[in-house]
Amino acid sequence: MIYLDNAATTRMYDGAITLMAQACGERWFNASALYKEASDESRRIKEAREKVSAALKAGDGDVYFLSGGTEADNTALMCTRKAKGSRIIVGEGEHDAVINPAKQLKEQGFDVVFAPIKPDGGVDEEKFAGLLSCDVSLVSVMHVSNETGAVNDIKKLAALTKRVAPKAVFHSDGVQAFGKIKVNLRDLGVDLYSVSSHKIHGPKGIGALYVAKGAPVKPLVYGGGQEKGFRSGTENGPAVEAFAFAAEQTMRDFEANYSKKRNFIEQLKSELQSACPEVRIITDTERSAPHILTVAFGGVRGEVLLHALEKRGILVGVGSACSSHRESRFKTLLGLDEHYRDGIVRFSVSEFNDISQAAEVAEAAAEEAAKLREYARK
Amino acid sequence: MIYLDNAATTRMYDGAITLMAQACGERWFNASALYKEASDESRRIKEAREKVSAALKAGDGDVYFLSGGTEADNTALMCTRKAKGSRIIVGEGEHDAVINPAKQLKEQGFDVVFAPIKPDGGVDEEKFAGLLSCDVSLVSVMHVSNETGAVNDIKKLAALTKRVAPKAVFHSDGVQAFGKIKVNLRDLGVDLYSVSSHKIHGPKGIGALYVAKGAPVKPLVYGGGQEKGFRSGTENGPAVEAFAFAAEQTMRDFEANYSKKRNFIEQLKSELQSACPEVRIITDTERSAPHILTVAFGGVRGEVLLHALEKRGILVGVGSACSSHRESRFKTLLGLDEHYRDGIVRFSVSEFNDISQAAEVAEAAAEEAAKLREYARK
Repeated sequence: MIYLDNAATTRMYDGAITLMAQACGERWFNASALYKEASDESRRIKEAREKVSAALKAGDGDVYFLSGGTEADNTALMCTRKAKGSRIIVGEGEHDAVINPAKQLKEQGFDVVFAPIKPDGGVDEEKFAGLLSCDVSLVSVMHVSNETGAVNDIKKLAALTKRVAPKAVFHSDGVQAFGKIKVNLRDLGVDLYSVSSHKIHGPKGIGALYVAKGAPVKPLVYGGGQEKGFRSGTENGPAVEAFAFAAEQTMRDFEANYSKKRNFIEQLKSELQSACPEVRIITDTERSAPHILTVAFGGVRGEVLLHALEKRGILVGVGSACSSHRESRFKTLLGLDEHYRDGIVRFSVSEFNDISQAAEVAEAAAEEAAKLREYARK
Repeated sequence: MIYLDNAATTRMYDGAITLMAQACGERWFNASALYKEASDESRRIKEAREKVSAALKAGDGDVYFLSGGTEADNTALMCTRKAKGSRIIVGEGEHDAVINPAKQLKEQGFDVVFAPIKPDGGVDEEKFAGLLSCDVSLVSVMHVSNETGAVNDIKKLAALTKRVAPKAVFHSDGVQAFGKIKVNLRDLGVDLYSVSSHKIHGPKGIGALYVAKGAPVKPLVYGGGQEKGFRSGTENGPAVEAFAFAAEQTMRDFEANYSKKRNFIEQLKSELQSACPEVRIITDTERSAPHILTVAFGGVRGEVLLHALEKRGILVGVGSACSSHRESRFKTLLGLDEHYRDGIVRFSVSEFNDISQAAEVAEAAAEEAAKLREYARK
């Protein structure tokens, strides 16, 4: 099997599985209890926090563990300080974990506006700037688009925001950025940043929210006061340890794996361009994260092509897995003409993919797309 | 080691660990993707839901997976339909995962009132009835007290509530009840019920909220629309499978394990009563869940006794692990006189404890309590 849906989820590192299973078997104590086994567990969670914090270059900001990227995004959107009816700017191409909380806020009477995206899926900076006003209380723009891999210049957008609205909270969903592009939270100047473990070969059900010093955000989940009171619930030590392991492992071979992914995507792109007659490359690979190539096949339905590739042992995505069962609002945002709009396929790689697969994938995609086009014409 | 803090967390079943590790290694796909590996995962989650639903006798109510008991309680408290300023009744002895959301609701202007508890930790039914009015929008009373094991007659309290306030939502935190006493949700007549995996030898980071048909509750976490839109976030298949395994395993040997735990607690109680001169048994074992015995040692600090027992390889709790680092509000509720108030120790067993340990524990507790009392008098 050639797995090219790593933006949806990744295969866990063997070492992370072993560590988690070991922790479940040996270190299953409640970290908030009072005996040594518990304080050992508490110390391990502290060490894991330091590892994730170091991987994010979080400096003196706090890194809170919670159940994943979606919860992190919800906390950022719903629990920040916001003046009644104030303006909230959200990227038009954000993940549903940001878009849907934003819609809730709109219902609550906030002035939620969506910053348009460009044809490559990145936020249009000029149009973004046009939405800013001193009344803005919250901005949420993803670091890397899960749909196209486009990298937003978060440092610039955050600085722009703070200049116009100094008290605004700036959140970035970093789920597709962490481990894929260099992330330096101290440098980015964001107040909040979401990351997820299962996108970097760690376990599902665990993620983190970075909170810069003094950022005005309250908990989403109240209770026993774990995570310094920010996220209650019995600490999930085994998952936390495995997440930190994955974060460390991902950063250890960062440069080599960056090139590996980038080369795969570039080769796939050029092979597709030469093998497929009707193909539009959506991802601007000059500026994108290294792991995603989103492509529109003309006269073909992406989902049908997905299943044709599946029969050949190649697993791909058609945009966000999370919204795969619904009509994607995303494809209408890219400004594609009708011939291409329904033919979007997302190829996303990880360090487990070998470049030798790229040609096979391009050839299969070209063949299957041609067959489907032929079939459609009959 | 003799582990007697099973109300804080439990050791996982070996089978649950194996299953989770296997799932992490083999079935790590995103259940919302479109290829077969994903729909297989989706089917496994459906089967797991059916198992947990069957274990709870949930009938046609929905069982939604989420990150654990605390999130389930928060969803129940924060996201149910409530008329502005309406009355909310919460048991005085609830877990912090209920008490702290309730305090948030109080700040939001709801008329939050706390139903007093009796000396055994159970809700005082008469006083509860006195708080009811047609203006009540939400009630939250735990099925089994995590502090004492007291069982509340939820069926009676729910019926009482519905008689006075037919539109009120009745929630019960069943975290200490599930797998310990018989739970039949159809029969209980509750609208919402919270359960947790790691209290029944499953993994941490996963739990469920039961929602009766038509109960007016919205999501706490929005996003990709997983869990029929009720709880977004990539499905945690490996943890869900292991949770369902634990639920099935727990119910399979329910009767035998019930007696095993009950007998342990009864023997511990009688040994403590004969070996310790100054001991008050708080748990009313005639009416309590089988796994908890809470005791107050006169003239001794519970935390100091905990560490003395720890040195002898016996791990116990001093009430909720979650609130162990704070001054417990609970101990002041039980009406104990000063001599006993600080000496509360909670022994909680699981099917992994053997009755042969009971005498050793009682003897150790008696000896250490006597030493500490002696020391205090010097």
